Amino acid sequence: MAASKEMLKRINKILEPKSIAVVGASQAPEKVGHVIVRNLIEGRYGGKVYPVNPKYDKLLGMKCYHSVLDVPGNIDCVIIATPAPTIPAIMEECAKKKVGGVLMLSGGFEEVGRRDLADAVRKIAETNSIPTIGPNCLGVFNPYNHVDSIFFPMYKLGRPGPGNVSFITQSGAVGSVIIDAAGYYGIGIAKFISYGNATVLDETDLLGYLAEDRKTEIIIFYLEAVKDGRRLLAKMTEVNKKKPILVLKAGRGAAGQSAALSHTGNIAGSYLAYQAAFRQAKVTEARSIDELFDLMRIFGQPPAMGKKMGVITNGGGLGVLTIDAVEEEGLAAAGLGEETIASLKKVLPSYGNIGNPLDLIADATVELYEKAIEEYMKDGGVDFIIICVLFQTPPMNERIVNVLVNAAEDKRKPIAVVSVGGAYTESYKKILESRGVPTFGSPNSAVKAIRKFIEYSKNMQKYTRKPKKTRG
Amino acid sequence: MAASKEMLKRINKILEPKSIAVVGASQAPEKVGHVIVRNLIEGRYGGKVYPVNPKYDKLLGMKCYHSVLDVPGNIDCVIIATPAPTIPAIMEECAKKKVGGVLMLSGGFEEVGRRDLADAVRKIAETNSIPTIGPNCLGVFNPYNHVDSIFFPMYKLGRPGPGNVSFITQSGAVGSVIIDAAGYYGIGIAKFISYGNATVLDETDLLGYLAEDRKTEIIIFYLEAVKDGRRLLAKMTEVNKKKPILVLKAGRGAAGQSAALSHTGNIAGSYLAYQAAFRQAKVTEARSIDELFDLMRIFGQPPAMGKKMGVITNGGGLGVLTIDAVEEEGLAAAGLGEETIASLKKVLPSYGNIGNPLDLIADATVELYEKAIEEYMKDGGVDFIIICVLFQTPPMNERIVNVLVNAAEDKRKPIAVVSVGGAYTESYKKILESRGVPTFGSPNSAVKAIRKFIEYSKNMQKYTRKPKKTRG
Repeated sequence: MAASKEMLKRINKILEPKSIAVVGASQAPEKVGHVIVRNLIEGRYGGKVYPVNPKYDKLLGMKCYHSVLDVPGNIDCVIIATPAPTIPAIMEECAKKKVGGVLMLSGGFEEVGRRDLADAVRKIAETNSIPTIGPNCLGVFNPYNHVDSIFFPMYKLGRPGPGNVSFITQSGAVGSVIIDAAGYYGIGIAKFISYGNATVLDETDLLGYLAEDRKTEIIIFYLEAVKDGRRLLAKMTEVNKKKPILVLKAGRGAAGQSAALSHTGNIAGSYLAYQAAFRQAKVTEARSIDELFDLMRIFGQPPAMGKKMGVITNGGGLGVLTIDAVEEEGLAAAGLGEETIASLKKVLPSYGNIGNPLDLIADATVELYEKAIEEYMKDGGVDFIIICVLFQTPPMNERIVNVLVNAAEDKRKPIAVVSVGGAYTESYKKILESRGVPTFGSPNSAVKAIRKFIEYSKNMQKYTRKPKKTRG
Repeated sequence: MAASKEMLKRINKILEPKSIAVVGASQAPEKVGHVIVRNLIEGRYGGKVYPVNPKYDKLLGMKCYHSVLDVPGNIDCVIIATPAPTIPAIMEECAKKKVGGVLMLSGGFEEVGRRDLADAVRKIAETNSIPTIGPNCLGVFNPYNHVDSIFFPMYKLGRPGPGNVSFITQSGAVGSVIIDAAGYYGIGIAKFISYGNATVLDETDLLGYLAEDRKTEIIIFYLEAVKDGRRLLAKMTEVNKKKPILVLKAGRGAAGQSAALSHTGNIAGSYLAYQAAFRQAKVTEARSIDELFDLMRIFGQPPAMGKKMGVITNGGGLGVLTIDAVEEEGLAAAGLGEETIASLKKVLPSYGNIGNPLDLIADATVELYEKAIEEYMKDGGVDFIIICVLFQTPPMNERIVNVLVNAAEDKRKPIAVVSVGGAYTESYKKILESRGVPTFGSPNSAVKAIRKFIEYSKNMQKYTRKPKKTRG
């Protein structure tokens, strides 16, 4: 059932709260209720933090309240980290206190057969229009204001910087490790929401929130089971037109569906039905975590106007593998224009191969790369440029990074970089990623993501995203 | 045409030479002939090094010879880095000097239409039974004795440590970036051979050499075009029975075939014919560079006795994604034995999910992991264990690494680890890889590689590889 308009209007109280109470705040360093208070204080959250636990008067040097009712002033967001059976009574107190919203982190509800507890919580939330996320989840993370209920230590699970990609995830584990990796790769995020059992607010409600969120430009969905598929489908169809939705659906096979059921207490249902719905909504489906990362990288690019791919390389074999992938994914190797060929002949040594892939060979300098990229940018027959660069060759130097960043910021055409190697190459790739250049470790994963991006570009002809400037 | 027996017997003169002459040795730091001499001296090559160049008397503090004929004593291996047109005359001198073998690095032969030069070189090599690799290649690298003709600077392209994986690659670029990455991932190698145009020794000759090489246990092939497919097929069929062959074939589509032709001057031919040949020889084909890495990781495991997969995780969603991948790849989710379930019930908290995937949930300690892995090891219904570990949870600590290494060294069953995350997780993954634990960043890539490994294990029932101890 959809949450009330009243409730939906106030979801931002959870993601942009001016004050947070942590119920179940603890002095024991390994407890969830300790890690969260510590993360809020040691992170840079600027609002008020109220630890709540009847057992303590002080906690981490702060006054500890015995109940949310004892807290002076308003509470925008209450994070509850106490065992499931205690939560209905705490929710009653939250209602009395008229708090802005609630995050329930603890498990022990539908997924272990305690539907009674879930029903009690839902009733209180709905009666009092309290937007409530969870239970059985990691809650939220907002890098813009450092609201953070992820109870994994910061040194173990990195928090990404601000960006334009938002996450809605049913599994806290999958969601959190993905943002951990995303941050490591230099991908910034807007909002992270782990919603667990979806007892009150569900995926559709949260999608509606992100659709209106000004910081969010790309939406990532990790789904296991959906309660109201039709509602989600309608919302996805609408939102995907203005903000691309990338979805990873788990619980696809029989064993996976049964695992999903015991995970969040929801029935996954037929994967075929989900696939049909995704196709109908024209949302982009990733089939694996790696593919999701690949799509995140490429969906920040300017829209592709067609499927004619131009490949440039200083490592012959890498170009051959890339053009193979282009053909195997149903894209086309661009034919080069007469003018492009004439211009390239002037700058390329006799033993370079003018064609597509354009093999600049291992002698290629950064200057030659720069010229070749410019020729491909100007050639009307090339829709997308893939640059397969060996940073390892003797004449390459650090200026190649600048050339590639300029090509990505040029915006005349979408580009992607493919590069394989060890420590030296990885350091270059990290810089590129942090500057918003989509960078891949394999031709095939690059081309597969590009194909899906081109499909989306084609489906959404009205698709006009602003040049992104929000990475890293 | 096959090389003579005389020639084949002496290939080891190139890979295990006691003395090396570098023709085209140069004082200019950016020149190939400079980088190679420097790499041999600054690396730990223990044999004699003779720079050869008529222009100099001294080079890098050493005597420089005007011709190989001026060098006192024997030369096992001559590395030639001079332009193509000069090479036939140099080969004549090598013949006169009765050198052990020759590496020709320079391009400018078949691939640019100079078949005449290639014919001249081949004639001299065959008449004098000089094993000759190249031209248009990077040559060889042997980490056991630091023979190294890869003319990429060591700080840009890392050299892997000694191990049991050998490479035969037509493209120097692809081969070298792969060993660069392999070294970075902690995969050690036995021999690296980049053979380029295959003018004298071809891929089949080199495969025969590696088949007899005691250090080589797994053989990686990067192929674009093969001159004598039948011969290669026969050799692959024979060698693959004792040492698994993993092959990456480029030039699969029309555009790729034409690119391959201009790359090494050889006709790639129908990919369907190659695929049929690979199937007939039962060699394992990788379709992308990432897949090749995944296969390298998994082929070091003890043989799989069946396709019933057991999944253990402390991150519910990751388990669901893994079991989905298991079903989608045509493998099976193992049913757990009564005894396993009874034992697990004793140690797992009530809210953990005993099933497959076994969800130990985020509260899981290292000790719980250890017990769960032991139960899966003992369960006769589980053929292969996939451990999807979140290193990020609060109770996890560094002892988990030891538990996973022990599981891999246990050898009762093959295992794989799946783990996704940022800097903290990556540091753990690197340690695991360097200790020979196959570690993957995505359930799907792990399971896909496992499927191919199981197929190989099944095809090669006589397959009995010694426990490997050669990584890192």
